[in-house]
Amino acid sequence: MEIPLVKIAERVNGDLKGDRDRCIRGVAPFEDATGDDITFAADPKFLKKVDETGAGAVIVPRNFRASSKNLVQVDNPQVAFAKVVALFHPPLKPETGISPKAFIGDHFIGGQDISIAPFAVIQKNVYLGDRVTIHPNVVIGDNVVIGDDVEIYPNVTILERCKIGSRVKIHAGSVIGSDGFGFAPDGKSYYKIPQIGIVQIDDDVELGAGNTIDRATFGRTWIKKGVKTDNLVHIAHNVTVGENTLLVAQVGISGSVTIGAHAVLAGQVGVSGHLAIGDDVMIGAQSGISKSIPSGEVVSGSPEMPHRIWLKVQRILPRLPELKRKLAEIEKRLIKIEAKPD
Amino acid sequence: MEIPLVKIAERVNGDLKGDRDRCIRGVAPFEDATGDDITFAADPKFLKKVDETGAGAVIVPRNFRASSKNLVQVDNPQVAFAKVVALFHPPLKPETGISPKAFIGDHFIGGQDISIAPFAVIQKNVYLGDRVTIHPNVVIGDNVVIGDDVEIYPNVTILERCKIGSRVKIHAGSVIGSDGFGFAPDGKSYYKIPQIGIVQIDDDVELGAGNTIDRATFGRTWIKKGVKTDNLVHIAHNVTVGENTLLVAQVGISGSVTIGAHAVLAGQVGVSGHLAIGDDVMIGAQSGISKSIPSGEVVSGSPEMPHRIWLKVQRILPRLPELKRKLAEIEKRLIKIEAKPD
Amino acid sequence: MEIPLVKIAERVNGDLKGDRDRCIRGVAPFEDATGDDITFAADPKFLKKVDETGAGAVIVPRNFRASSKNLVQVDNPQVAFAKVVALFHPPLKPETGISPKAFIGDHFIGGQDISIAPFAVIQKNVYLGDRVTIHPNVVIGDNVVIGDDVEIYPNVTILERCKIGSRVKIHAGSVIGSDGFGFAPDGKSYYKIPQIGIVQIDDDVELGAGNTIDRATFGRTWIKKGVKTDNLVHIAHNVTVGENTLLVAQVGISGSVTIGAHAVLAGQVGVSGHLAIGDDVMIGAQSGISKSIPSGEVVSGSPEMPHRIWLKVQRILPRLPELKRKLAEIEKRLIKIEAKPD
Repeated sequence: MEIPLVKIAERVNGDLKGDRDRCIRGVAPFEDATGDDITFAADPKFLKKVDETGAGAVIVPRNFRASSKNLVQVDNPQVAFAKVVALFHPPLKPETGISPKAFIGDHFIGGQDISIAPFAVIQKNVYLGDRVTIHPNVVIGDNVVIGDDVEIYPNVTILERCKIGSRVKIHAGSVIGSDGFGFAPDGKSYYKIPQIGIVQIDDDVELGAGNTIDRATFGRTWIKKGVKTDNLVHIAHNVTVGENTLLVAQVGISGSVTIGAHAVLAGQVGVSGHLAIGDDVMIGAQSGISKSIPSGEVVSGSPEMPHRIWLKVQRILPRLPELKRKLAEIEKRLIKIEAKPD
Repeated sequence: MEIPLVKIAERVNGDLKGDRDRCIRGVAPFEDATGDDITFAADPKFLKKVDETGAGAVIVPRNFRASSKNLVQVDNPQVAFAKVVALFHPPLKPETGISPKAFIGDHFIGGQDISIAPFAVIQKNVYLGDRVTIHPNVVIGDNVVIGDDVEIYPNVTILERCKIGSRVKIHAGSVIGSDGFGFAPDGKSYYKIPQIGIVQIDDDVELGAGNTIDRATFGRTWIKKGVKTDNLVHIAHNVTVGENTLLVAQVGISGSVTIGAHAVLAGQVGVSGHLAIGDDVMIGAQSGISKSIPSGEVVSGSPEMPHRIWLKVQRILPRLPELKRKLAEIEKRLIKIEAKPD
Repeated sequence: MEIPLVKIAERVNGDLKGDRDRCIRGVAPFEDATGDDITFAADPKFLKKVDETGAGAVIVPRNFRASSKNLVQVDNPQVAFAKVVALFHPPLKPETGISPKAFIGDHFIGGQDISIAPFAVIQKNVYLGDRVTIHPNVVIGDNVVIGDDVEIYPNVTILERCKIGSRVKIHAGSVIGSDGFGFAPDGKSYYKIPQIGIVQIDDDVELGAGNTIDRATFGRTWIKKGVKTDNLVHIAHNVTVGENTLLVAQVGISGSVTIGAHAVLAGQVGVSGHLAIGDDVMIGAQSGISKSIPSGEVVSGSPEMPHRIWLKVQRILPRLPELKRKLAEIEKRLIKIEAKPD
């Protein structure tokens, strides 16, 4: 593929400085780009070195100027670059149609241009919107409703009655709508509490590979618009995750937790049950959250504390043996003084 | 569905106070219940507010009386409520029979009223008891034996020779009988140690979604009667988990660990290899267990310590910078005293 | 099966002391072995007790002599024993051939003696080498290339363009080539960065069950020769894992991390993005790695510190309440001294 720079600038609403007819043949990271590639520079570290990249053109912030390179000036270079990557590498579109090797249950309703691969199982009363792609070996349970432009990767399971919005992606091996972990102690053994709620996933959500999202006991486990999860994330029954919140790999959210909008939970964070995490909260990797966190807080540690305090604590931890020695030494010196006759 | 209250009371061996003919049409949590619903109240927090719920009837402890509500008095309100939920929401029973789209290997023996869904694979010499449900895209390896009333959810893998008891549920995407992580160092590389044991899962076990349970090197990895695991739990080779023990989400148990009966390991706990965890042990979330734990202990932290000490330690951790400053200040004051002429 | 001891000694290049015609009928661990079994003893703890085992023969180090038992002396008893286990329990070889119930896409090229099970999906332009085994319900994406003697267990997903070497095993439920977690902030929401790289897995790698290995944004996520991973391991985009490195269960590696050769990351370790972990590094269980680690270091803790310091720190942590009390007490005594008239 070969696209003149002027077309690229148009695609990203950019201002072009330099050779508008320069032909671009690919995209590459800043360090690896060659003369046929376009790349991007967003932060000062890279902007300083724009003249050193081998790229044929560079996407830069709107106010960046000084360079001998061909520049495309935009509001958000990273987003603009992502759009150009998609231009050169359009997403694979599997053939549309329903494979004769898929299993389609009764009362199926599918929209325009859907694609259902071999050995996918669509159980009863399922609704799929337009341009939905169901990859091989996916299982969709009874009464599931899925919006438009959704992509469900191989070996995903979506269980009965769950609701999936539009433009959702669910990566391979994930499970949506497994039973919540609910058991009533009955002497020494446990009695299962039926889990009769659902999982609702709103528009523009992307779930990583190997996620497990449990259905609610009653009502819904609710993943709101624009949420993105990384791989191997666990979300328990009756959790709500707010709009555009990010859950990084191996995060675990216990039952009935509410997370606000635009929060970021870093890798391997665990959140105890029934807590409320506010909007815009940031939680450092491996933190263990044992209390509710008000909006806007930045916390770390297990149990959590303000991140700025955690930064100090983590510098002191390796010095604890030294502090302990110092304390013993001070006591000895004190005893010496105390022993002095007045 | 509509059930008179007297029938509900009978179902749960309850004593009815109030309108025995009151018709109940559903179940709901305490806060959400309306006049057609039954709910429950077990602890003082809710019992105090029984007259405030909108519910048409409330399941309460045997000794609870004072209320204008219709009451069903029982020994264990939570278990009774779970039974009533199941009354209104009986578990989905997939059609019985073997789908012509399933693959059934040689020498298959199946009991009464089994259900095998499309694209399930039953390899050679498999035995399934009565009323077993195999959901779509499940793989059951050679010589696997499964008891009665078992439900295996979609995309589960059970590998060769594993043994599953009766009334077991295995949620979607879990893997039973993968090879243990056994490699012998051979210079700089590793030589694989064949894993020739099995996984044995006893009666009444329920395993969450995305679990991985490795077969033993020799002998068996053994999940005893009544164990319940949450999602994404890892159990290594040759582990034994005792009766009615709970493993919460993302717990990881290393090889050859033995866990007693009725223990509870909270979320994201890790247990090092070859340890013995006793009966009734409780382990706090994210703990890292590096030593064996005697029966009855309650531990937390990484590495673990008695939980009551951990509660104090976790209050001190954020104050370490302050303690360090205080120590430096005390030393200064000490130096001042030491510097005084006698 | 029955094998004379002399044949076993030959198989492992061992020197035989004792009855060369002794018939061995099985393998067993040291404590459980009976007269028909062979076992092994590698370290002093077991070598001391060689005369106490019930085994008919014992594999021991080359220099070990003193025993009345039949001995097979070798350089590496554990590796030799693993070879003898494989002799008695040869790996199951599924029937070769392509099941008529598998789905094979266009332009498929398969080597000699391959086995493709029912409901496996091989998409377009796939190449499989000789003696490759594809278990049931595996999905192999377009343009995937797989070497010789590879075994892919049930319900594994390998997505488009990924490259798998020879003698690789991938255990059940793992996902290779899911999208990296790459999103560009765009106001309050996120714009997806296309992930156009691949995953490359070199020869002799074994991946546990339930792993998720993301494809690179550009270029490759690279698992080098001889790497072994345990279950539920997460490897993000653009990570490189060096030769013969071990990743124990539930480890999570963030994007663009480079790990050297022959490192060992214990269970539940997390590594932050863009770090370099050197050769032969050892990282203790549950550690949280926030800085690059030079080759040869042994670290533990979250955040990490030298392991020898961590051993001291973890002994002090439960004593923090006591240290705090001591500090308060010392201050009181100091105040008393300060209060004295000169």
